[in-house]
Amino acid sequence: MKNKINIVCIGGGTGTFVVLKGLKNYQYHLSAIVTMSDSGGSNKRIRDEFGLLPTSDIRQCFIALSDEQGGAGLLRKLFMYRFERGEGISGMTFGNLFMAALSDILGSQEEAIRKTGKVLRISGTVIPVSYTKTNLFAEYENGHVATEEHVIDEPEHDGTMKITKLFLKPSPEPNPQALDALKKADLIVLGPGDLFTSLMPNIVVPGIADAIRNSPAKKIYILNLMTKYGQTYNYSAQDHIKTIEEYIGKNLDYVLVNKSVYPVRVLKKYEAMKEYPVLDDLSEKAYYTVVRKPIVSCQLVEKATSDALVRSLIRHDSDKLAKELVAILETNI
Amino acid sequence: MKNKINIVCIGGGTGTFVVLKGLKNYQYHLSAIVTMSDSGGSNKRIRDEFGLLPTSDIRQCFIALSDEQGGAGLLRKLFMYRFERGEGISGMTFGNLFMAALSDILGSQEEAIRKTGKVLRISGTVIPVSYTKTNLFAEYENGHVATEEHVIDEPEHDGTMKITKLFLKPSPEPNPQALDALKKADLIVLGPGDLFTSLMPNIVVPGIADAIRNSPAKKIYILNLMTKYGQTYNYSAQDHIKTIEEYIGKNLDYVLVNKSVYPVRVLKKYEAMKEYPVLDDLSEKAYYTVVRKPIVSCQLVEKATSDALVRSLIRHDSDKLAKELVAILETNI
Repeated sequence: MKNKINIVCIGGGTGTFVVLKGLKNYQYHLSAIVTMSDSGGSNKRIRDEFGLLPTSDIRQCFIALSDEQGGAGLLRKLFMYRFERGEGISGMTFGNLFMAALSDILGSQEEAIRKTGKVLRISGTVIPVSYTKTNLFAEYENGHVATEEHVIDEPEHDGTMKITKLFLKPSPEPNPQALDALKKADLIVLGPGDLFTSLMPNIVVPGIADAIRNSPAKKIYILNLMTKYGQTYNYSAQDHIKTIEEYIGKNLDYVLVNKSVYPVRVLKKYEAMKEYPVLDDLSEKAYYTVVRKPIVSCQLVEKATSDALVRSLIRHDSDKLAKELVAILETNI
Repeated sequence: MKNKINIVCIGGGTGTFVVLKGLKNYQYHLSAIVTMSDSGGSNKRIRDEFGLLPTSDIRQCFIALSDEQGGAGLLRKLFMYRFERGEGISGMTFGNLFMAALSDILGSQEEAIRKTGKVLRISGTVIPVSYTKTNLFAEYENGHVATEEHVIDEPEHDGTMKITKLFLKPSPEPNPQALDALKKADLIVLGPGDLFTSLMPNIVVPGIADAIRNSPAKKIYILNLMTKYGQTYNYSAQDHIKTIEEYIGKNLDYVLVNKSVYPVRVLKKYEAMKEYPVLDDLSEKAYYTVVRKPIVSCQLVEKATSDALVRSLIRHDSDKLAKELVAILETNI
């Protein structure tokens, strides 16, 4: 058992799902700090109609970390399920409804999240970055301001515009459990994932950037594979890192970069969405170590079976990613 | 362990819930055969929008028989939960949504029901009386025909009218598991519960009445406490039994009758709904043995906390009922 070594993953969405799914096969203690400012789809209804905090990112982490056998395994399958029938029910995820019902029964969403992790027998801890009801705002280079996460994620404006400022309103309280996990961490894994709607919404919560900077942990940033229209159009590797540095300072120890090439036919699909491989313009002279490895999945996810992975055609491979992360970790302990 | 002794309860709704909840504390093997023709509320949506068989009666049996501790205990609480928020979700029970999602995942509602019982760690077996999609029809003394269960249960016509004929359309196949359980039964417990919408809908499934009649088991009928406007208005004890006899013949061994009196203030509430205590006109010379015992709950359920019990103000007491059933059973083995 290496359970005295703590790994903290920060993000949300598919990227964090992939990291956790790989790392859970090792005996480290895993924590996932996830965004609580999502506002699209099922999350919107959980916020507006149930008056609760959004739980889709939590749900994905639970699926990644849960026991795949027995009763918990059955519940895990249900957590992956999205209703396709029923007026007003279609489109909702079972997992979000499960946590909404449990929040009502227990009179506390915090307690409901904790209990859900228990019945799913998750290996690790899922930590909402904050329990404050808040919204994500993005200011763009032309002065336009988007006032909700899903408007940033699926912009109706010109998606080539740069985001110049990202903030949460009202200003949230950080979850003390998140600050504590960062303090005790041996390794902090940032990303991969949508820079402005998955990773940064954690980092802009007051106190989190400081906690990352002041943590004795080694800090790894896993560079995204593709740019994203609407938030990182034309962003190079350095542009990604610059955004993170603005908040946590020049504090990264490693940047993990994919060096496999992608099939042309898949790149064409991305091109149609104005999305491209992130240009690797990282210098060997940087203050961080650049680790370049083949870390994408051989099986490109073209037709996803789980909605947790539906958004990416090219994605990181859980096992390859975990192996590299562990290799970096082991050279430091 | 007395697990070679088989008790089969037939009914559905609150009555069967109460019987099972008491009997599960004994070491007999319990089976519950439940109606599959309910069509009101959550059931209607499960039928119409999900294209599935109704599961509310199954849900109640699962709650009655499930383990109240640990993860199964948490799931049990969720199964008791009815959503009060969410457009299109409010009014649905968590349990019905759970079974609907699982039916879709497993591609079989039958398998979903079986698996659900397993994760709830139920003590016993819950057996849908049929897997055929069917509707309950009732013909009244004036020739009027109601074509759905919930129209019989909550009539818009004159509720003092007698039901002259009850049948299912299309004619369903009996579940072989139900026939088998009846064949192997040592004790068959009929009722209590709404005569024409909970108990009889099982008995009118082709093959079930024969299986009851031909079973070597002792047969007990637990007489309802109150008449029900719309189906048993003015029915005496003998009227109830006559209805059952029409289908299974003069085949009962025992009739269990409550002999406690009810508080006047509660009876007044029933009177407002044109419902009255069932008149005990049973003769000592009948072919069955009449057992009169104080078997109602001391705590009258005026404000129910679980929706499983919300419908009755006066109800049978699980423990007292079970004790009497076991006493009758033990004198016969």
